[in-house]
Amino acid sequence: MANLDYKQSGVDYEPLDGFKRACQAHAATTRAALLDGQTIDGYREVAGIRGESAFLLEGHDHYLAHVEEGLGTKNLVADAVERATGQCHYRAIGIDTVATMINDLITCGADPISVAMHAAVGDGRWFASSDGVDGGLSRRAKELAQGFAEGCLQSGAIWGGGETPALKGMIVPDTIVLAGSCVGHVKPKSRLIVGDIRAGDAIVFLASSGVHTNGLTLCRAVADRLPLGFETPIGDSPLAPTFGRALLEPSVIYAKFCRKILDAGLRARYFVHVTGHGWRKLMRAPAALVYRIDEPGKIPALFDFIMQAGPIDKREAFATFNMGVGWAVYIDAADAAMCVRIAESLGHRAWVAGTVLKDDGRKAVEIPPHDIVFEEASLSVR
Amino acid sequence: MANLDYKQSGVDYEPLDGFKRACQAHAATTRAALLDGQTIDGYREVAGIRGESAFLLEGHDHYLAHVEEGLGTKNLVADAVERATGQCHYRAIGIDTVATMINDLITCGADPISVAMHAAVGDGRWFASSDGVDGGLSRRAKELAQGFAEGCLQSGAIWGGGETPALKGMIVPDTIVLAGSCVGHVKPKSRLIVGDIRAGDAIVFLASSGVHTNGLTLCRAVADRLPLGFETPIGDSPLAPTFGRALLEPSVIYAKFCRKILDAGLRARYFVHVTGHGWRKLMRAPAALVYRIDEPGKIPALFDFIMQAGPIDKREAFATFNMGVGWAVYIDAADAAMCVRIAESLGHRAWVAGTVLKDDGRKAVEIPPHDIVFEEASLSVR
Repeated sequence: MANLDYKQSGVDYEPLDGFKRACQAHAATTRAALLDGQTIDGYREVAGIRGESAFLLEGHDHYLAHVEEGLGTKNLVADAVERATGQCHYRAIGIDTVATMINDLITCGADPISVAMHAAVGDGRWFASSDGVDGGLSRRAKELAQGFAEGCLQSGAIWGGGETPALKGMIVPDTIVLAGSCVGHVKPKSRLIVGDIRAGDAIVFLASSGVHTNGLTLCRAVADRLPLGFETPIGDSPLAPTFGRALLEPSVIYAKFCRKILDAGLRARYFVHVTGHGWRKLMRAPAALVYRIDEPGKIPALFDFIMQAGPIDKREAFATFNMGVGWAVYIDAADAAMCVRIAESLGHRAWVAGTVLKDDGRKAVEIPPHDIVFEEASLSVR
Repeated sequence: MANLDYKQSGVDYEPLDGFKRACQAHAATTRAALLDGQTIDGYREVAGIRGESAFLLEGHDHYLAHVEEGLGTKNLVADAVERATGQCHYRAIGIDTVATMINDLITCGADPISVAMHAAVGDGRWFASSDGVDGGLSRRAKELAQGFAEGCLQSGAIWGGGETPALKGMIVPDTIVLAGSCVGHVKPKSRLIVGDIRAGDAIVFLASSGVHTNGLTLCRAVADRLPLGFETPIGDSPLAPTFGRALLEPSVIYAKFCRKILDAGLRARYFVHVTGHGWRKLMRAPAALVYRIDEPGKIPALFDFIMQAGPIDKREAFATFNMGVGWAVYIDAADAAMCVRIAESLGHRAWVAGTVLKDDGRKAVEIPPHDIVFEEASLSVR
């Protein structure tokens, strides 16, 4: 069977990217709204911020960070698994919805403050139990609310509000579109992560728990090719979880780790939330440097399974998925060991994975143990 | 034909309300996240804020306001009108998307700072032009981006970011789900609108431009009953606009008005964004008072048309639509005339519409010219 890649799985980014460019051009005209002399706190847009994971405004004594994000199609996997096994995974989906936005917010060094949920359905009966017991609320609805609160607690943020529209004719019945927004502060301003990465900096990786919220459309395409679909075990051991179960492991939230290494005064220079575009994201910062990963870590069983079952080429897999790494810290090499210890003290698996190198203005991600090199042209997120 | 009401038009709020209650119960457990002693700026939840239009956190020298909101189904009307006439109304849709969230944000007295767009499609081709000209971007995509920026400029806020997912299998093809979030500050803290409404206060109304973003599902049901649908003229004059055209008038944004009356030191005690639940929302504040509207204003032609064409009973119409009034200010009676003048100076139509009365603990909205009374039990938004 032909190899799978992201475009074949039904996601065509070209018109979307055109719209994003139009939005950025129009959004730039709104800078004037903050420059009319009436603005409280003297807020102004931070130069070069568009294209980063979180939008940032500079105030007198802090930065304000604002993120709007969506879960994507991960809950379709939860629905398929529930149909096959009767097991509900919406607690994980609730955590994931918070994780996807908070992990973007904290890339700038922000502490999360307020999180809001957006949960849109095509039919309000999505929330209703079939038998009318439990106050008429479905199990998935209850688990979703519970998981969203858990994600906020893991982030150190308050669940502040939300919106729950029923959009008949717009959203496919028996589906829910999950998204939300969050707000944070960088205070004092010296905590801002500005991306002043230097040759010689160490690259520290923190493990992911699985795919997190990225690449799910491709994973659904993989499941469609398997006779047992999401029920396929991902290893030979009798204890191996099914593909669906492994995909639905809740995402890791890195907020408390980031806060703690900044509190400790470690010289962290850049954070990468490893999500869309996989390890190509490791060269997200503008700096023209080479990011060499000598210790990529063992590829987790889930990703080995996805590459085999797709089949998906290893290079395509590293260009798409997090491959077991949810978070990267670029940090002064002298602080790298302490960074790993702090991560471990909070229950994360972490290790020094690589080094930043100068190569005459070249920008690339190199992964020698896997014979993979991503040159600058392979990533265009700005 | 039988009268139309909101439930018949396909919106069943019961399971949704159950989910909202579950969310509020779980959200309450996240207050602890801000009380762990590590919180910057000493933020804490404002007592009694859940159920208000904007979520509020109290900091040392300001309040932080955060709103997540969606446009609802209004763009389905724009799509139907475009199919019938070829005219694109997505500039208005972009303004409306901003208006619906900003008008919620400013009810607490907040100045808007940052706005983010959430635009989710089932197929990225929604953004693509059929002929590949104009950079391949569809006219509606370009107008949407333009209108969103206009809404931000009218709000005095910066368009800070956004999210544009393609959610195949979740969102109906050729539709877009529009939503977003915004952040604002109340500073100094004395500008907070706390709802300390008093007997004798005046009620000032500011005109809407039409239905704004509320009641569109019901309006689509009305159009379905008309032989000419949205193309039906809403009056006998040869210049009368069509039903669809009138519905697509961009929403009014009241941000600059609110800022200006607070800057002027007027004793505004409460703001109501007149939207879902129509004029029942006029008793949104906890105060057990009677809100008597002696000057409701002339019912605009659009709403007369909707009541006739539905048919929709006048009481049901006032319980559902804004009926020509987008914003209400409860204000010390001595400041009411100045409030009207400031509104007019900014181009709004405004008038002193009524009075707040004490009636032995009774809570109600009375509209004597229309023989309508809404008692407290008719509104349950908390």
